[in-house]
Amino acid sequence: MKIAYLGPPGTFGEEAARRFAPGDELIPCSTHSAVARAVELGQADAGVMAIENSLNGSVAETLDILIHETVLKIHGELVVPVAHNLIAAPGMTISDINLVYSHTQALGQCSAFLETSCPNAQRVAALSTAQAVELAVAHQGAAAIATLRAAEIFGADVLARGIQDQDNNATRFVVIGTHQPEPSGRDRTSIAFEFSGDRAGLLTSALNEFSSRGINCTKMESRPTRATFGEYIFLIDFEGHVLDRECAKALEGLTSMTSMLKVFGSYPQAK
Amino acid sequence: MKIAYLGPPGTFGEEAARRFAPGDELIPCSTHSAVARAVELGQADAGVMAIENSLNGSVAETLDILIHETVLKIHGELVVPVAHNLIAAPGMTISDINLVYSHTQALGQCSAFLETSCPNAQRVAALSTAQAVELAVAHQGAAAIATLRAAEIFGADVLARGIQDQDNNATRFVVIGTHQPEPSGRDRTSIAFEFSGDRAGLLTSALNEFSSRGINCTKMESRPTRATFGEYIFLIDFEGHVLDRECAKALEGLTSMTSMLKVFGSYPQAK
Repeated sequence: MKIAYLGPPGTFGEEAARRFAPGDELIPCSTHSAVARAVELGQADAGVMAIENSLNGSVAETLDILIHETVLKIHGELVVPVAHNLIAAPGMTISDINLVYSHTQALGQCSAFLETSCPNAQRVAALSTAQAVELAVAHQGAAAIATLRAAEIFGADVLARGIQDQDNNATRFVVIGTHQPEPSGRDRTSIAFEFSGDRAGLLTSALNEFSSRGINCTKMESRPTRATFGEYIFLIDFEGHVLDRECAKALEGLTSMTSMLKVFGSYPQAK
Repeated sequence: MKIAYLGPPGTFGEEAARRFAPGDELIPCSTHSAVARAVELGQADAGVMAIENSLNGSVAETLDILIHETVLKIHGELVVPVAHNLIAAPGMTISDINLVYSHTQALGQCSAFLETSCPNAQRVAALSTAQAVELAVAHQGAAAIATLRAAEIFGADVLARGIQDQDNNATRFVVIGTHQPEPSGRDRTSIAFEFSGDRAGLLTSALNEFSSRGINCTKMESRPTRATFGEYIFLIDFEGHVLDRECAKALEGLTSMTSMLKVFGSYPQAK
């Protein structure tokens, strides 16, 4: 199998791809859209995309790709704990640091550590945590916040491990491809839908299709339609598989009240 | 009045603040959190924060500030159309451009124009559209995508106007402060709430408090609680004022089924 992910190597995207398909060939892509395109063109068998972080919420870009850009189906999910580390060129110590590179989200998620341990270091945004290590190794006095794997790739030292402010930091990734798995008994289904009007009660009726059948909605999100301000596409995750009888009935009920209904896929829930 | 906004001058945040309070003193802040803090500390009488874009969706940072960081109330909203312009140092022409600075969102929103008019120009991220103009003026061969006001501030030329790919690009801003306006007859109320469990049907029951009373929910969003993955805080905007009888009853019903309910404010709807 070939697995496309949002690169470069050393990012959390690579870690998710490696966990999903250990030993398989990994193909780094420059954007999430390029991940979907690589699978559509047959250059990869599956693609891994971050969809939600426990602290920052949904990855809007991924939701918009699933809504607007691709007909690929989600066939799996996995949750990857996010651990940040302070990394620098070999021989450096924390007191040598006057500049810290990382992705802006990672800088924000380690701000308590940075204020305590490197209070005078300038914080500079990089395009990814992996690029941050590349930059840190090339600039004297610079460090990076990144994965242990990124340190390994660029031959850098790890000065401090697990420096994130909150330990419940994790990212959920979805795996997209062309097939749909059979019901496993413990599935999740992700859908998006749009109403033709915004009459009071439409959303209540839509959710009632699930709750009246005892189907648990695990996530509810909205995205702009991009056509008219104040009109939304709703996204729901619910427990069950499109081939389960009650789920199929709920979706049938939803079809009659929506102008668009797209099933992103049914897939085994991550443990 | 003093109005705090996300600066620097020349950004859409400044334009929103100027439209909200023409002629008043404007105080640029470096983050949305700093906008809220400036109002809390009495350094400003009100603060203007972007909350939603018609193409990109909610501004998660602003939602999280309203949920977690401040007790200030929303007392107004306004919608500002987003128009992007190609700006460069005086004397430059489009054919001279080999690099374009802007905020990543603005670069993305003008990609069709850039591909047609400056196909070979490198695109470089700046912290704000205003900073992009500052950088463009200082670097030979560089241009920026920004507001007309930013061109004026930095004495730059406008090479092309309205270069955004889609014309329905607008940003909704909320105005926060310490007072709550009386009902105007055409109000919107923004709230956030959390359930203590995730039992099927809780969200349906919550929405039913509104739909059964004919109250129209204009927006529905979720944010992570930051405590446990898969648990959410729900945000709803509905038409009406907390002092309207039916709205008050709906909120009373909601209180009994939620472990947290926060009213961000009731305020006149933008036209």
